[in-house]
Amino acid sequence: MIIDCHGHYTTAPAELQVFRDEQIAALKVPGHVPAKRPLAISDDQLRASVQPQLKFQTDRGTDLTIFSPRASAMAHHIGDAVVSTHWSEHCNDLIYRVCDLFPRNFVGVCQLPQSPGVPIAQSIAELERCVTQLGFIGCNLNPDPSGGHWTAPPLTDRAWYPFYEKMVELDVPAMVHVSASCNPNFHATGAHYINADTTAFMQFMTADLFKDFPTLRMIIPHGGGAVPYHWGRYRGLAQDMKRPPLTDLIRHNVFFDTCVYHQAGIDLLLKIVPADNILFGSEMVGAVRGIDPETGHYYDDTKRYVDASALGAAERRKVFEDNVRKVYPRINDRLKAAESALGA
Amino acid sequence: MIIDCHGHYTTAPAELQVFRDEQIAALKVPGHVPAKRPLAISDDQLRASVQPQLKFQTDRGTDLTIFSPRASAMAHHIGDAVVSTHWSEHCNDLIYRVCDLFPRNFVGVCQLPQSPGVPIAQSIAELERCVTQLGFIGCNLNPDPSGGHWTAPPLTDRAWYPFYEKMVELDVPAMVHVSASCNPNFHATGAHYINADTTAFMQFMTADLFKDFPTLRMIIPHGGGAVPYHWGRYRGLAQDMKRPPLTDLIRHNVFFDTCVYHQAGIDLLLKIVPADNILFGSEMVGAVRGIDPETGHYYDDTKRYVDASALGAAERRKVFEDNVRKVYPRINDRLKAAESALGA
Repeated sequence: MIIDCHGHYTTAPAELQVFRDEQIAALKVPGHVPAKRPLAISDDQLRASVQPQLKFQTDRGTDLTIFSPRASAMAHHIGDAVVSTHWSEHCNDLIYRVCDLFPRNFVGVCQLPQSPGVPIAQSIAELERCVTQLGFIGCNLNPDPSGGHWTAPPLTDRAWYPFYEKMVELDVPAMVHVSASCNPNFHATGAHYINADTTAFMQFMTADLFKDFPTLRMIIPHGGGAVPYHWGRYRGLAQDMKRPPLTDLIRHNVFFDTCVYHQAGIDLLLKIVPADNILFGSEMVGAVRGIDPETGHYYDDTKRYVDASALGAAERRKVFEDNVRKVYPRINDRLKAAESALGA
Repeated sequence: MIIDCHGHYTTAPAELQVFRDEQIAALKVPGHVPAKRPLAISDDQLRASVQPQLKFQTDRGTDLTIFSPRASAMAHHIGDAVVSTHWSEHCNDLIYRVCDLFPRNFVGVCQLPQSPGVPIAQSIAELERCVTQLGFIGCNLNPDPSGGHWTAPPLTDRAWYPFYEKMVELDVPAMVHVSASCNPNFHATGAHYINADTTAFMQFMTADLFKDFPTLRMIIPHGGGAVPYHWGRYRGLAQDMKRPPLTDLIRHNVFFDTCVYHQAGIDLLLKIVPADNILFGSEMVGAVRGIDPETGHYYDDTKRYVDASALGAAERRKVFEDNVRKVYPRINDRLKAAESALGA
């Protein structure tokens, strides 16, 4: 089985964006109280909307996508916590419905109703709802709800601990994933995303978060940002700072996906980072949508790069399936339930 | 000849830091007017201070270091433009004296008296002084004088153009180099530096700066941040945005150094990025000071990695020497003058 740990619902029906546009327009009306209205989206519309993902799964030979709301649209910096909550609930509910329609193809991961300056504890209820009521298996945690101004404390600060306690209790991991950038310095998918990955890794490296939470699991997407390419730098910095070796630091707690869009990058990742800490992911349909003229294949068809790598069979199985089952343990029950319901 | 394009004066005599500490202490005194006093540092002290660099040059087989003030100590966010000017002048004057004492070993690149919110035009005088009076061949340009809050406009904004006009007139390049981070999210050498590299590249990729300044040259240090590792992502993003191919975008204007501290990283860099756009650099003595237990050699002895790479002889010569002469053309006269003065 090949599980893609990193898919966003970038093809949702237009009605979702209509609601969002209404939210944003209402912010300009003095004294307006944020309101949530139902979305008029049918199951048929949902089915039609994920045909691109289903076709890519078939064409590329992957089985299941861990599916979460569009990351760049989370935009936690827009409006306040109420606006963010309404928006997150709608986005998560659509993910739930897609997963319910295609239980063999999608498993849900939730967006959180974060908001700049608002304690992360206020995101616990939505996490709990998504995991216990909607069957989600993890969440996307934004280390910078300000959208490129980086005003929140580092992820290793105790301000985040109440949320980590709930993650541990529910046994769900978080993918560390920023959203759109409202800082003109940072292109969202080209700079802000990758910077956030690198930043989070360095935060984890310099603090004892995983001593406090030995079972807390964080996925750093986009191949770990700059980290594998600069692995020697990070090994050296850890050494200079009398920190444990990197492989010990990350072993049970920090994982990278394979969202790196060329063979040489994937080869480096698979060569340098222990296979136990890599999860297959493609970010499909996402940041880069074109076909690479050098290969004739989609840039984000990352399975091809892993297939063409020097990775051995046992390690390949870890990357494609076993590690995901380990990092997102709730996926196992979800898959059993899907098989049972559909008749395996 | 092997020229290291990236060396900082991290071993300056303690007297320099005494002055800086006085500056910082004075900021707390209400109504204090920033003052500059002479530094009491002898030539013998300077000679002694750079023995580590000279020994590394000998031990590693490099000839010349392009030498600039300690990057993390620039700290443009401390004090105002006057404080920054006094500090920059002292730092640059010491670089000048070291280069004057060891003209075959060091050539100068200057720090700029940037300050948050202050127009970059105010840094032109110091650039001009350093290039025309002190014989410097380039500058370090900080894209984020705020130290991790990223409040300046992108490097492609017209606010920077007056400075670029002077760079073009003087025919000197800039290394895009941030300084210390006062944002607790960003570890300086582990996150802020690398993020700034990635950020600058994406800024250059999405704007027409080099159409406006066809001869402007920018060095992105630390192996280009995350860029070579994510080369497929950047190629794909450029394609999606209808931008020119990356190799065309960077050809005459954007260069990466080799400050990547392990073999696999250097191999990827040299494989992916055209040799014409890579300059040898080590960041010695700098960010990572230890010895890699896996190799028994210093992490930052990057010459070893380039030596062990698959790079052909002609391309190797470009990386070690020719590209530096092309990107920093003023180095040629400096070297001729040094040979002539010392007797070649």
